[in-house]
Amino acid sequence: MTSRPDGAAAFAAWRVMAQGAAEAALERSLPPAGARPARLHEAMRYAVTGGGKRFRPLLAYAAAEVCGEAPSGWPRRLVDAVAAAVELIHAYSLVHDDLPCMDDDTLRRGRPTVHVAYDEATAMLVGDGLQAQAFEVLATALATHGGGPAATMLAELAAAAGPAGMVGGQAIDLDAVGGTLDLAQLEEMHRRKTGAMIEVSVRLGARAGALEVDRPLHDDDLAALSGYARAIGLAFQVVDDVLDVEGDAATLGKTAGKDAANGKPTYVAALGLHGARARADALYDDAIEALARFGARADRLRDLAQFVVRRAS
Amino acid sequence: MTSRPDGAAAFAAWRVMAQGAAEAALERSLPPAGARPARLHEAMRYAVTGGGKRFRPLLAYAAAEVCGEAPSGWPRRLVDAVAAAVELIHAYSLVHDDLPCMDDDTLRRGRPTVHVAYDEATAMLVGDGLQAQAFEVLATALATHGGGPAATMLAELAAAAGPAGMVGGQAIDLDAVGGTLDLAQLEEMHRRKTGAMIEVSVRLGARAGALEVDRPLHDDDLAALSGYARAIGLAFQVVDDVLDVEGDAATLGKTAGKDAANGKPTYVAALGLHGARARADALYDDAIEALARFGARADRLRDLAQFVVRRAS
Repeated sequence: MTSRPDGAAAFAAWRVMAQGAAEAALERSLPPAGARPARLHEAMRYAVTGGGKRFRPLLAYAAAEVCGEAPSGWPRRLVDAVAAAVELIHAYSLVHDDLPCMDDDTLRRGRPTVHVAYDEATAMLVGDGLQAQAFEVLATALATHGGGPAATMLAELAAAAGPAGMVGGQAIDLDAVGGTLDLAQLEEMHRRKTGAMIEVSVRLGARAGALEVDRPLHDDDLAALSGYARAIGLAFQVVDDVLDVEGDAATLGKTAGKDAANGKPTYVAALGLHGARARADALYDDAIEALARFGARADRLRDLAQFVVRRAS
Repeated sequence: MTSRPDGAAAFAAWRVMAQGAAEAALERSLPPAGARPARLHEAMRYAVTGGGKRFRPLLAYAAAEVCGEAPSGWPRRLVDAVAAAVELIHAYSLVHDDLPCMDDDTLRRGRPTVHVAYDEATAMLVGDGLQAQAFEVLATALATHGGGPAATMLAELAAAAGPAGMVGGQAIDLDAVGGTLDLAQLEEMHRRKTGAMIEVSVRLGARAGALEVDRPLHDDDLAALSGYARAIGLAFQVVDDVLDVEGDAATLGKTAGKDAANGKPTYVAALGLHGARARADALYDDAIEALARFGARADRLRDLAQFVVRRAS
């Protein structure tokens, strides 16, 4: 892979702005802090506002720029709602995934997980509530905006979050603990568990960007963006597996080596450390190739692809 | 309250037909039984198809008849999607509510609960997946139908299911165990925990019925239907509390006296058994009054109100 040092400063500035927009959108998307029941709402905020890369919102904002105008300034209501919705789904999945009956993690982003900081019942309701909130945020923004493929967008989000997507991938993961998956099965698991939400972040970001400037979104552009997203979605997971072996707890904010200790199948187990790194690089190349048609409008998506394979946590 | 013996046979026949439509809609709304991961999908079916009154779907079908044409036959796609969506949300809430960290119930409708029949992790994913599936079913039907207030309908469903509705009510319930709620707080809990989804079942049923026949739905009609739904929603809960004291496990399909044993606040504790029965009857009268404007088109909703206060389980 080739780096794009000329764009590094532009990306850094953009990332600060986009992350700020994502934080603000998330803040607006949560029930007021003082609203009853206070403990639930406090725990929802704890789950959502504990940092994190905001990778899915960044993808949505970057995809919006491909299909809409370059941003003259935030906030932009529809893309903000997409950014908040995909991150709320992601946050809920982490809260549930950390519970004792799942991964039993006590540490997330360097802080106690929700069920440790609160209790298990609250953590379950936090996750359930965040999922509903995700659909409400996006549906409300689409209702206010009017027109456009609102129902299609919400159906895409639900499909990515549900049994055909994220939840189905988690169930495959659950069944696989202590067993073995071949490479094709491992990829199907990740395509659903994390890939589906990454893909829908890009697709809905693009759709929202096009809607905001009232410009049609061509099917082949959407297909190309999906191809990009599928490639970086898998790359993200390959790199996760590499970092789980190479990283340390301080950098990751979670327990390193946990997947291997739990007997979970990983890319490193399947391909070796060197093979896994090579696979990530090949997926990066696929992602960049998928963006060829878009020219400079897709530079932020290219930056994010590089970020995926170069990140240290 | 006065019974309507002349309509009993008509209601019985309608109920059989509507329940059949609901079962068929739910069947179509679930991923194919053989789809991977098989264990998740099998457990989702176990959670959804274990009987149940299908009260929320019946409300949706009955409300659709108020605002649309009387049904010439099932299936009717949009109302079916509403019926499936509200029941999927209800089913997910029961699966999560039965988990050890919540109510720790081992019996539901006379069968082992999902986490007993499968395991806790699967039960959590089943609930998470059913919630996503609910939004997908309704969004997909609205996308196919085209037009109408699709995003508004989905936002209403999400609000009813989320922190402002069902999940918020469950959190209030959680906080109240072992403590006390006054009557106003008890009603707020139930208004959110069960009332919000009952109300949205009626509202979305009415909206879908109107959309199917391409007829406008007037705001004051929708407001009257909401008033009806709020009254029977509370009545439903009052009767639940009464049955929890009076009923036996065989009729209820769950453990009787459980709420009192758990130190949960109930209408019977707040009003006494006689007072709770009287409150249910008063709410029934409110519900019937709210329907006055609709004439015979609302007979099925009247039947359902009577069913709520007369049921034995």
